[in-house]
Amino acid sequence: MTDKSLSRRRLVSMSDVSVEDVQKIMTATSAMKEVSERDIKKIPVLRGKTVINLFMEPSTRTRTSFEIAGKRLSADVVNISASGSSVSKGESLKDMVNNLTAMKPDLIVLRSPFSGAPYIVSKWIACPVVNAGDGRHEHPSQSLLDLFTILEAKKSFDKLNISIIGDILNSRVARSNMLIMRKLGINITVCGPATLLPKYIENMADRVTTSLKEAVTGADVVMMLRIQSERLNEKKFPNLREYSKLYCLTSDTLKHAAKGVIVMHPGPINRGVEISPEVADGPWSVILDQVTNGVAVRMAILYLLLGGGLQETN
Amino acid sequence: MTDKSLSRRRLVSMSDVSVEDVQKIMTATSAMKEVSERDIKKIPVLRGKTVINLFMEPSTRTRTSFEIAGKRLSADVVNISASGSSVSKGESLKDMVNNLTAMKPDLIVLRSPFSGAPYIVSKWIACPVVNAGDGRHEHPSQSLLDLFTILEAKKSFDKLNISIIGDILNSRVARSNMLIMRKLGINITVCGPATLLPKYIENMADRVTTSLKEAVTGADVVMMLRIQSERLNEKKFPNLREYSKLYCLTSDTLKHAAKGVIVMHPGPINRGVEISPEVADGPWSVILDQVTNGVAVRMAILYLLLGGGLQETN
Amino acid sequence: MTDKSLSRRRLVSMSDVSVEDVQKIMTATSAMKEVSERDIKKIPVLRGKTVINLFMEPSTRTRTSFEIAGKRLSADVVNISASGSSVSKGESLKDMVNNLTAMKPDLIVLRSPFSGAPYIVSKWIACPVVNAGDGRHEHPSQSLLDLFTILEAKKSFDKLNISIIGDILNSRVARSNMLIMRKLGINITVCGPATLLPKYIENMADRVTTSLKEAVTGADVVMMLRIQSERLNEKKFPNLREYSKLYCLTSDTLKHAAKGVIVMHPGPINRGVEISPEVADGPWSVILDQVTNGVAVRMAILYLLLGGGLQETN
Repeated sequence: MTDKSLSRRRLVSMSDVSVEDVQKIMTATSAMKEVSERDIKKIPVLRGKTVINLFMEPSTRTRTSFEIAGKRLSADVVNISASGSSVSKGESLKDMVNNLTAMKPDLIVLRSPFSGAPYIVSKWIACPVVNAGDGRHEHPSQSLLDLFTILEAKKSFDKLNISIIGDILNSRVARSNMLIMRKLGINITVCGPATLLPKYIENMADRVTTSLKEAVTGADVVMMLRIQSERLNEKKFPNLREYSKLYCLTSDTLKHAAKGVIVMHPGPINRGVEISPEVADGPWSVILDQVTNGVAVRMAILYLLLGGGLQETN
Repeated sequence: MTDKSLSRRRLVSMSDVSVEDVQKIMTATSAMKEVSERDIKKIPVLRGKTVINLFMEPSTRTRTSFEIAGKRLSADVVNISASGSSVSKGESLKDMVNNLTAMKPDLIVLRSPFSGAPYIVSKWIACPVVNAGDGRHEHPSQSLLDLFTILEAKKSFDKLNISIIGDILNSRVARSNMLIMRKLGINITVCGPATLLPKYIENMADRVTTSLKEAVTGADVVMMLRIQSERLNEKKFPNLREYSKLYCLTSDTLKHAAKGVIVMHPGPINRGVEISPEVADGPWSVILDQVTNGVAVRMAILYLLLGGGLQETN
Repeated sequence: MTDKSLSRRRLVSMSDVSVEDVQKIMTATSAMKEVSERDIKKIPVLRGKTVINLFMEPSTRTRTSFEIAGKRLSADVVNISASGSSVSKGESLKDMVNNLTAMKPDLIVLRSPFSGAPYIVSKWIACPVVNAGDGRHEHPSQSLLDLFTILEAKKSFDKLNISIIGDILNSRVARSNMLIMRKLGINITVCGPATLLPKYIENMADRVTTSLKEAVTGADVVMMLRIQSERLNEKKFPNLREYSKLYCLTSDTLKHAAKGVIVMHPGPINRGVEISPEVADGPWSVILDQVTNGVAVRMAILYLLLGGGLQETN
């Protein structure tokens, strides 16, 4: 491992995950997926390790996915949610995290509403940190499960055409994916209303368009993003009906995609807003595969950071 | 197993639990109860199985009972409460459940405020579903622990006289019990104010009365139901004081019962409202036995649906 | 064991913990601390035991500490928080606890806003009870981790000078420590604004002062208490700025302490209110050692009450 991320025993940003890291994680994920298909879905590799799931934002699916991943590796998993936490008593994040670290966990999974929090935390503490989503910034484990799901369907990343569609501005999923996909040789198109495209987006993508049809045309992978209704009051677009008229992915639009196109979504989906039910449930959809692969990729991440023979090298 | 419920690997309604199923569950519960009395209260039969406790309504006792049951069988138990869930992000129940199922749990325990939700969910997913209470509909694991507690005290169900007393209209406990008890040869009396008796109740019970004394007279088993103060604003009865004057079970009233009568309550009890303290804590009371048996019956349910050699037959 | 607390299989007040008990717990804590430093932080001594963490008040650190402690001993740990509990359905504490006990847990850890609740509960139920903080009353596991941390630094309790500084009136930590420290031969100074000193405090301490400098002078151990901003509206002191001007521990004030002084705080700390950042993070500080030792001392408590050969003797 020559990569700066995993060798530093953290996974906070896809910007410091290398192509070699991705290969290593994909291989480990395959092995872990096989464990979840067994009758006895448990291996003892992390027995006696303590994994803290520190969730400062609500999240059923990501928390559950990490919890199941940890338990299938026989780790002891401790969930902490912000609502019941000492943050409400005015404690700083630094003191809170230092305190948790003093209890000698082996790894902390951190979901935070603040962009950059997992990075800062990884600087403060010696214990490995996994970013489970930080504000509008990154969501690396989601990106890695996306990559695994793409690889399962397409066998290779090289020269694949992916279109990432929706609220690019606020999407940590889009950001993490754009950071790694270019390194992997994937051609990235981003698409959304102009108000939901970040400045300088052309530096992160190969093509930028506001036309859904243009984005979908020729795509091997269409990745729809979630419209967060909590952002609606920011007036970035008129209303959900207007949005869906222009950007809801339907089977009609999908006809312009490449043969064998797959449709992805990080969930939870808004049916009829960014994705039509017949697409979400159709043969193109790998949305539930993403969820299944999420457990496996998180098992791989925990294993590689804790039990997989990775050493701290700097 | 010829029964349509367990052989379909779900427990959603007592209407599809057969007499043979009850016998099988009672036998397994006896064995499981013995485990909870050991010094080491754990057997490895569900090692490597993932049980999701999905509670869309708050419930300390039922969630804890299922959690302890799962852990004593060595399963990995993952709790999800509605408050921290993606339902608050507008996800449909179907998408939420499909997502959880994609994480390959072995069984989902579902508590829902919506009548019928566990049934619908069991149609959507292949994973076994256990109904832990759905709206005003059913609560089959409670019914089974009631049956086990009755059997412990009375040795047989045949020709027993049971009186179920209180808010019959809203009680999922009463409904589940009425559905199975008639099949078992138990004579059912239901009793409550006329406003809390459902229409056509005479089709579900052998006798209907609004008189507490009449209901208790000759009863082998008196099952009191909880008055849910959250229903008070529905104006089904004047107030708690009026209710308790007519329907609170006291030791005086109990004198009319059969010799060796037992008193049951699904909890949590409202002392002095539907049951007097001297009855709740008296020699007739098997209320805490019900709780103890609840863990054992839930261990039996998990075991039979997952590890007990039951096969999917249709 | 001749002590009335541990031999009664409860830890509810330091008033019934003897000097011999402390010695026994300190020895066990040393062994448990070593477990948390291993690569595989888990020993099977409480396998098959069920520990219920019943938290009627929010607490990240104490709940997490007990949860990790239980899991490192291989117990099954079940968390119950008040918010999701049947207390909101009007159930009495007695009924709730009796119900939990009927599920045959091996030990209940209880955090309660009500002073005396763990004592009363320990009278109601046969199952061992550990007080994890009750109102303004006591916090014995915190006191024991404080003692272990002092012993690590100072090797002996005899004739040590400790100054406990801050909101003595409301501090369960101060109360528990004062109760045991006098038995151990520690000289206790308490210090705080007069409005935050309880009546008859001179019966519990060797010296009482309202001067921070006087309290710190010659101290071997300075234990700062948390100012609970939720008490601010009680008007016990003008405001936080006034308080910190007089009672915030700075490195300047610390110069008056004995050589090798250590600074303690039960956390969460209010930086700049009761303790300055350079003191909290300085070489005197053993605040994070307290947290580390908290897991070890709680492992020792669970072990001694459950697995350590202690027998019920009365």
